[in-house]
Amino acid sequence: MIDRLLPDEETPCRKQRYLKQDRSIRNDGVLKMRQSQTLIPTMREIPADAETKSHQLLLRAGFIRQTASGIYTFLPLGKRVLKKVEEIVRQEMDAAGAVEMLMPSLQQAELWQESGRWYTYGPELMRLKDRHDREFALGPTHEEVVTSIVRDEIKSYKRFPLIVYQIQTKFRDEKRPRFGLLRGREFIMKDAYSFHSNTQSLDEVYDRIFQAYSNIFRRLGLNFRAVIADSGAMGGKDTHEFMVLSEIGEDTIAYSDSSDYAANIEMAPVVSTYEKPDEPLKERQKVSTPNAKTIEEVSKLLKVEETRCIKTLLFKVDDKYVLVLVRGDHEVNDVKVKNYFQASVVELASPEEVKSVLGCPIGSLGPVEVKEGIQVIADHAVQAIVNGVCGANEDGWHFVNVNPERDFQVTAYTDLRFIQEGDPSPDGKGTIRFAKGIEVGHVFKLGTRYSEAMGAYYLDENGKSQPMIMGCYGIGVSRTVSAVAEQFNDEKGFIWPKQIAPFDVHLIAVNTKDEVQRELAEQLYQSLQKERYEVLFDDRPERAGVKFADADLIGLPVRVTVGKKASEGIVEVKVRKTQETFEVPASDIVSQLASIFERL
Amino acid sequence: MIDRLLPDEETPCRKQRYLKQDRSIRNDGVLKMRQSQTLIPTMREIPADAETKSHQLLLRAGFIRQTASGIYTFLPLGKRVLKKVEEIVRQEMDAAGAVEMLMPSLQQAELWQESGRWYTYGPELMRLKDRHDREFALGPTHEEVVTSIVRDEIKSYKRFPLIVYQIQTKFRDEKRPRFGLLRGREFIMKDAYSFHSNTQSLDEVYDRIFQAYSNIFRRLGLNFRAVIADSGAMGGKDTHEFMVLSEIGEDTIAYSDSSDYAANIEMAPVVSTYEKPDEPLKERQKVSTPNAKTIEEVSKLLKVEETRCIKTLLFKVDDKYVLVLVRGDHEVNDVKVKNYFQASVVELASPEEVKSVLGCPIGSLGPVEVKEGIQVIADHAVQAIVNGVCGANEDGWHFVNVNPERDFQVTAYTDLRFIQEGDPSPDGKGTIRFAKGIEVGHVFKLGTRYSEAMGAYYLDENGKSQPMIMGCYGIGVSRTVSAVAEQFNDEKGFIWPKQIAPFDVHLIAVNTKDEVQRELAEQLYQSLQKERYEVLFDDRPERAGVKFADADLIGLPVRVTVGKKASEGIVEVKVRKTQETFEVPASDIVSQLASIFERL
Repeated sequence: MIDRLLPDEETPCRKQRYLKQDRSIRNDGVLKMRQSQTLIPTMREIPADAETKSHQLLLRAGFIRQTASGIYTFLPLGKRVLKKVEEIVRQEMDAAGAVEMLMPSLQQAELWQESGRWYTYGPELMRLKDRHDREFALGPTHEEVVTSIVRDEIKSYKRFPLIVYQIQTKFRDEKRPRFGLLRGREFIMKDAYSFHSNTQSLDEVYDRIFQAYSNIFRRLGLNFRAVIADSGAMGGKDTHEFMVLSEIGEDTIAYSDSSDYAANIEMAPVVSTYEKPDEPLKERQKVSTPNAKTIEEVSKLLKVEETRCIKTLLFKVDDKYVLVLVRGDHEVNDVKVKNYFQASVVELASPEEVKSVLGCPIGSLGPVEVKEGIQVIADHAVQAIVNGVCGANEDGWHFVNVNPERDFQVTAYTDLRFIQEGDPSPDGKGTIRFAKGIEVGHVFKLGTRYSEAMGAYYLDENGKSQPMIMGCYGIGVSRTVSAVAEQFNDEKGFIWPKQIAPFDVHLIAVNTKDEVQRELAEQLYQSLQKERYEVLFDDRPERAGVKFADADLIGLPVRVTVGKKASEGIVEVKVRKTQETFEVPASDIVSQLASIFERL
Repeated sequence: MIDRLLPDEETPCRKQRYLKQDRSIRNDGVLKMRQSQTLIPTMREIPADAETKSHQLLLRAGFIRQTASGIYTFLPLGKRVLKKVEEIVRQEMDAAGAVEMLMPSLQQAELWQESGRWYTYGPELMRLKDRHDREFALGPTHEEVVTSIVRDEIKSYKRFPLIVYQIQTKFRDEKRPRFGLLRGREFIMKDAYSFHSNTQSLDEVYDRIFQAYSNIFRRLGLNFRAVIADSGAMGGKDTHEFMVLSEIGEDTIAYSDSSDYAANIEMAPVVSTYEKPDEPLKERQKVSTPNAKTIEEVSKLLKVEETRCIKTLLFKVDDKYVLVLVRGDHEVNDVKVKNYFQASVVELASPEEVKSVLGCPIGSLGPVEVKEGIQVIADHAVQAIVNGVCGANEDGWHFVNVNPERDFQVTAYTDLRFIQEGDPSPDGKGTIRFAKGIEVGHVFKLGTRYSEAMGAYYLDENGKSQPMIMGCYGIGVSRTVSAVAEQFNDEKGFIWPKQIAPFDVHLIAVNTKDEVQRELAEQLYQSLQKERYEVLFDDRPERAGVKFADADLIGLPVRVTVGKKASEGIVEVKVRKTQETFEVPASDIVSQLASIFERL
């Protein structure tokens, strides 16, 4: 992972673009907005059903509104942030050599039937029929559509690599939409697809997009990690998720405390070694363990450490049953079981299945004298157990003083457990810690999964037909807005990073009935725009307290307040992030702002 | 209409923005593209199923591809044009004081049930169910969603007027999608909605948006008219359609040859006056007219001019039947019938209905001795007929020498026919001509249609609850791309206006194997970008003929060709629009381009 860490150096090209955007990503559109003429419905109360800080604040500060479960409207402020995030994504994708296009949301079922996903996607895929009863899917991603287009248009290796992307509304009928924009049913995504005639080219583009993603999340000021992820049923090899570290994250990341190693905990290999205690082997005994089912209960009852217990689980691996052994204090990682057997489906057997296959309850399983035909595999740690404890495959009975090899055999000792905090980092550097992460991006080497299924072939240098090699790359754009919102706030409201703040400056006229104040404010409103600052002007006839509270809630980088000292030509400047407040002659405001934004 | 004609003067604000964009609407994104790295699949053949020039060229030049009937992908060039059109729309909407937001495509059925449109919209509305069997519509427009948001957030007259807009994908399940982007099932639309506490404010904003639309279509270089349109079932008053004049248009516009009057033909009042010929009234006679059903047949058989025939039609107006009379050479305008009766539904009666109501076939209808209870109305022209001909309400028989008043009575003489070419213009200036138009925009005073149905009330100055007054304003953005494409082309391909050309310059290296040519081309590629030209660089190893044909097809404003004279530092410049071709020292290219783009 180290070679892929976020670089501090920028390409000259990017630097130039940064300079142009020292304050924020410019919309070429409107620089200014009067608060009286827009829709920023702020709320004092915390909405009852909003659990996370970002969801609460996006609602309270008037950035979004829910119209149905998991379906949101971006109000004017939310739309501005969204556009700026999109623009950063677009710039970095363009710089990586990807070309923008726009594919449709309505995707005919036939394409999904070709890829097979029509049958496997499940209820997350929204389906509908048109007036002629033809079936369509509302696109959650566009592998099928893009593969069909490239299949029809490109015939020769000479046209590769090709990288295309789009920023578009996607649909996924989540079972439990939650956390506002974080897990919605209609959301904005940037999805990219690359096509290649060889794996070196895929590797090269994968690294380039990886770098683009790092640039994007770094420019957004996010605290993130690129973690090794599960390639799952997609059959690809390399795959990384970009995770923003956050307590509300739904994924757990295992990372090293002293290197850049990071992986989804499902994916982290365990490199621990276990020393076998130098104890004499005792005679195995069958003991009565009434009502003791769990490792904890058995360990207590028999006064044996959990590390001496052998946790035994029955899995259904594709069509056969397998016993999996791990140490009592460890947990089975079913992804590793699946990978070991190169299986399609791995599921823990139900109590009924266990009863019918092994004739005893789940709490009494063990590897000793196991029924013929049931394969047994074990985690490395089990091999180091001496005089251990396991179920006797009989309700209410366990064995004590069980020893591997002497009392049971296994097909293989291998890595089968979840990594834990405190384990050594798989890269050999430091110790593993856990963090929660919000997945905001995903890069994936698809290989020929779609091109073979959908007949996307090209002619190689020798005139031979070959399946196109593909990669796919996604960023949850609206989810990223949520992740930024979650990270940049305090008890009063948002503290937007200047790059994506909806406006640069919140200009407030304290008393709009005071002609001097109003005039000075209007004058600043005009002059700041001329300097290309984006200004939100609170010209509402509200009390000062309301305006200040709203300004803190909305969280623009700088507040400029025109109050009583307007008659002396003095205004107040407040930096939202640092809470600094100072008075400035109105005539100096432009140079003051320049230096503030320089520092921010 | 005159006061609303496209002004030649520009506001200072707009002028400033134009200057910034003298070459094209800038994407802040990528300025350059190598043809070898993008997807521009040009075609030599005219696609069989593309009937219109724009559809053919958008396909042939590699701007779009169809994925399903009426559903298109915007390939890289198409996406760039689309973005530039969107940006022009956005700038003018912002300048008109509208604020951008983004509402969802998935709209819950409950909202549509509140407005009633769930029941009336018909099969054009795409409907689907989510995993919990809740019904949703895929938004074709957003009146319901925006009304529900504003209803929830705005309570006081002080917050009006509010104008919001969005640029977004819309869905409409057209019965016969056709002409490419012109009539699609998934398309990009700009829709705007305004909210007011009084009709003066609505009028003022309507005019402002009207002006913004005029600016937009003028900036796109389109030959268009703002025409008076039918407010239809919406119940609104003022409504105009913006029509691009084009042979492929599906609407007919009646316009004056000497003023700015223009209206959808359905909406144009007839102001003709008719002089009654000074002839003695003859005795009415019943004559046999076997097999003569149509006006033409009867007129021929009886040797009577069509202008002396009384065309008699039975309409079902809501729940009652009405006979409508027009002169033989005129056509009934059912919108006028509907408006006369202030009816909800007006339909021509079927032959079966005519038989059952009047006891005779359609071809034999007439107003003489008409069955009791059937109301008769007539167009003004009928009043001036002397010794006319009409059906005898008996199969195979007509009356001759029929005279109004003497032989039949009518409830009213009013304007019931379609205007015709040659009629005087309703504004009193000039003569009516017809043209075909493509509807690209629509502005509409909704009034309280949605706010009353959906309970969107505010408190007025006196604390009294009032329904919000609304307007809605749409532009078919992808359709507009089609309209521009239809207008700007020649037999070789597109001739994009510089404002929205996908790139400014098409740079061609004739022989990429020639090092001198390649180097000079690469050098120009870099230096033109530095001057902020958007450059498409044809670096493909193709024959010169292929490259030139593709360049003409794609139709960028200027082609710069690096060929044999590269060794002398000379390149060729071709202006697509004028076909001018001249040689220029590469060192002069920047100043040459500046002067060319100045003129374009």
